Amino acid sequence: MTEATIIYGLHAVRRAIESGQAGHLYVRSGKRSRRIDEVLALCAADQVLEWVDESCLYALTGTDRHQGMVFESVERQAPKASLDALMMAKEGRRLLLALDGVTDPGNLGACLRSAATFGVDGVIVPKHGSAPVNAIVHKRSAGAAASLPVLTVTNLARTLRQLKEAGYWVVGTAMDASARSIVEAGLTGDLVLVMGSEGEGIRRNVSNQCDEFVMIPMNDASYTLNVSVAAGICLYEINRQHQQEPQR
Amino acid sequence: MTEATIIYGLHAVRRAIESGQAGHLYVRSGKRSRRIDEVLALCAADQVLEWVDESCLYALTGTDRHQGMVFESVERQAPKASLDALMMAKEGRRLLLALDGVTDPGNLGACLRSAATFGVDGVIVPKHGSAPVNAIVHKRSAGAAASLPVLTVTNLARTLRQLKEAGYWVVGTAMDASARSIVEAGLTGDLVLVMGSEGEGIRRNVSNQCDEFVMIPMNDASYTLNVSVAAGICLYEINRQHQQEPQR
Repeated sequence: MTEATIIYGLHAVRRAIESGQAGHLYVRSGKRSRRIDEVLALCAADQVLEWVDESCLYALTGTDRHQGMVFESVERQAPKASLDALMMAKEGRRLLLALDGVTDPGNLGACLRSAATFGVDGVIVPKHGSAPVNAIVHKRSAGAAASLPVLTVTNLARTLRQLKEAGYWVVGTAMDASARSIVEAGLTGDLVLVMGSEGEGIRRNVSNQCDEFVMIPMNDASYTLNVSVAAGICLYEINRQHQQEPQR
Repeated sequence: MTEATIIYGLHAVRRAIESGQAGHLYVRSGKRSRRIDEVLALCAADQVLEWVDESCLYALTGTDRHQGMVFESVERQAPKASLDALMMAKEGRRLLLALDGVTDPGNLGACLRSAATFGVDGVIVPKHGSAPVNAIVHKRSAGAAASLPVLTVTNLARTLRQLKEAGYWVVGTAMDASARSIVEAGLTGDLVLVMGSEGEGIRRNVSNQCDEFVMIPMNDASYTLNVSVAAGICLYEINRQHQQEPQR
């Protein structure tokens, strides 16, 4: 089956086209800009170009925040991912991000963006109770959703068990102040970072698979962090600790 | 304090918007009508519009008698802020966040949320070229916008100079890989952290007031971080370095 995905915004559209996705590119006629021209220059035979007016772009996206470019991708929204591919041996540390119950597409997109920035090999989401990788996810990921492997699994707990058997250390994040501070966690080696939903945290059957729990030290515990900000901080800290580790 | 009220039905929603109430307007996507379009035409900067499906409207109201429109009204009372109040002597380190050109209200709200979590004393934004503290800022700040002092200044560069004279160290963030890594920056003492816009960074007259520039080390420089994620990481790292500093 062919699935179409609507991607909008200059950066997200550029990423999709750079990664070679086939589809239909709608561009606002009239005013041109250097950034639009740069995207057009990247188009090849797989992308059909059409000049349209503002109202057409609005109809496609339901918003006026499309920046004059909408791409209707007719391939898979994300690169194909399999657990084997995600676990593929590579130089240096392997790092995966599992998102249990991130249902807001804007948050999912922002998590993918941070994951790509900090060199995560792939993202794992459960089939149920997670936002679908739709146009909002693509836009908020600033293009990361088009190039970062996203694996959807039926049973996240089982997948984490498989990863543990393959030598990954599974680290859950907790809002609970009794968890170990991530600053002191010594997170090196092959890792799976597990983030839960903002309201509920990590589900019990998933948290049962975590080897340890860490928390981000906060000054005012009456506030909480947005899940994408928390994911960004954890990935930053994991990289910091990895780089400060003496080379083995 | 921020209090939200749910208002639904075409007439009630129209009244609320006509009276200039700030809030979040949820409209059923798909079928449009003249009466819905008339209400939409009344919306201004204080009303955030979102297209949602029937089930979302039902979840908000607990009824199917919403006529396709639900308005979540927000009463606002932002704390008053003055530069003197922000600089007020207190136990421990003083920490301010200056946001130069964060025009997206969702990003501004997320920055305020992280600032409150990490114990920032107040946030400084320039009068021009910054998102107003509207309903979406309140919503995305998860309440922080109602309690964290936000100071709007005419000339951010001049304000930073005053802060330097008062003993603050002014740290700008850069995407430039030639800047010093924040990991090695040794950020202790009274600080102002300056973040720029995602596209343009910090304006020149503002960056001229920075004592130093730091960058967040990334694995894939072809991606960038969302400004609220970058702010969260910098504040986390500033706190980490402050807490690891031997007490003086």
